[in-house]
Amino acid sequence: MNRDRALTIAENQSSELAERLRFIYELDQLKNVLRQSQLADGSRRENSAEHSWHLAMVAMAMAPMADEPIDINQVIKILLVHDVVEIDAGDAFIYDDALRAEAEAQEEAAAARIFGLLPEAQAKEFRALWDEYEQRSTPEGRFAYACDRLQPLLLNVALGGGSWQNHGVTADRVKAVNGAIANGLSTVWVAAEQMIDEAVEDGQLRPAPDRHAGTAG
Amino acid sequence: MNRDRALTIAENQSSELAERLRFIYELDQLKNVLRQSQLADGSRRENSAEHSWHLAMVAMAMAPMADEPIDINQVIKILLVHDVVEIDAGDAFIYDDALRAEAEAQEEAAAARIFGLLPEAQAKEFRALWDEYEQRSTPEGRFAYACDRLQPLLLNVALGGGSWQNHGVTADRVKAVNGAIANGLSTVWVAAEQMIDEAVEDGQLRPAPDRHAGTAG
Repeated sequence: MNRDRALTIAENQSSELAERLRFIYELDQLKNVLRQSQLADGSRRENSAEHSWHLAMVAMAMAPMADEPIDINQVIKILLVHDVVEIDAGDAFIYDDALRAEAEAQEEAAAARIFGLLPEAQAKEFRALWDEYEQRSTPEGRFAYACDRLQPLLLNVALGGGSWQNHGVTADRVKAVNGAIANGLSTVWVAAEQMIDEAVEDGQLRPAPDRHAGTAG
Repeated sequence: MNRDRALTIAENQSSELAERLRFIYELDQLKNVLRQSQLADGSRRENSAEHSWHLAMVAMAMAPMADEPIDINQVIKILLVHDVVEIDAGDAFIYDDALRAEAEAQEEAAAARIFGLLPEAQAKEFRALWDEYEQRSTPEGRFAYACDRLQPLLLNVALGGGSWQNHGVTADRVKAVNGAIANGLSTVWVAAEQMIDEAVEDGQLRPAPDRHAGTAG
């Protein structure tokens, strides 16, 4: 018995069952995609599957503080699906603009391949959830993205800098990237901004570069 | 900056924000709870956080095959929450009856402590989701449990026996434990049973003990 024979048994019952099981097996690989963030105890890097679970729980916990009315069930589905494309495209560090740009085409192809494993109606459903995350044009898409920015910020803060420090990110960029928290959880962003400011004071996060430094004197 | 100071900043804004962030930090530890199951590629053991994500996706993928009408949103929430108690109680291997019995009181205490970190209304909401999984008295609770039995079976099948082989579990017990798949995904159970039978034929899973062996001759 192995994966291929299991899929043959499923196929003999119905092609839709085989398609769904193939998709389920494919998803297992997201557990091997490592992110830049570490766990809050610093023991190892976080993978994108456990990160997706954590985000869905963040959304459930933070839902009562949402700025706009949201359908929390839709937010949860968006967050469960949003990183699946990383199975093919990998995790592109959010502060690496070049890598992020390059990843876009790969993620597009990944969405077509991976969601395309499912029966057609479901492929469309999953693809629409991913689009809603990417476009952030709905309250649910914005809230999902706010959660996706809040969780790594909390991990970095617990680690005394975490992936900010490892990569020499500056505070102005941290605020620019994570400012999206304010598009859904504006009161939480007030607290998050203070955490960022104190991390700079502690020397855990580099301050914004002085724009006049190069031309001074 | 560290976790405690972040929570103080949150507390200064509102006690409810601090309670929610403390809960979110607590959840991070589920990523360190290891299950008996390995990933489908055999590279390492699965943790309960990524397992919970995988189950929610299994539920979404398999929902069209459900035997009864189900509210898939409720199923997803049940699955996201169902293993949180393992942060305190650990993962009790399903084929270890003694350990499972011992775990029950620990899981009860864990539910009180961990969900109790949240503001009261949310503590009740999360607790009710966990109860729905444990009791399996609703179509959603049964479907969630069916998914929780199907996913490790698929992993074990891909691994040529996996945790069945490591612990010398016999086919009759595998069928007894996983037969709950039939309470929600009965057509899938037909295929799963065939996978189990072929695993026995392959020598990857021990056959049921012969009840007459001891008294024969």
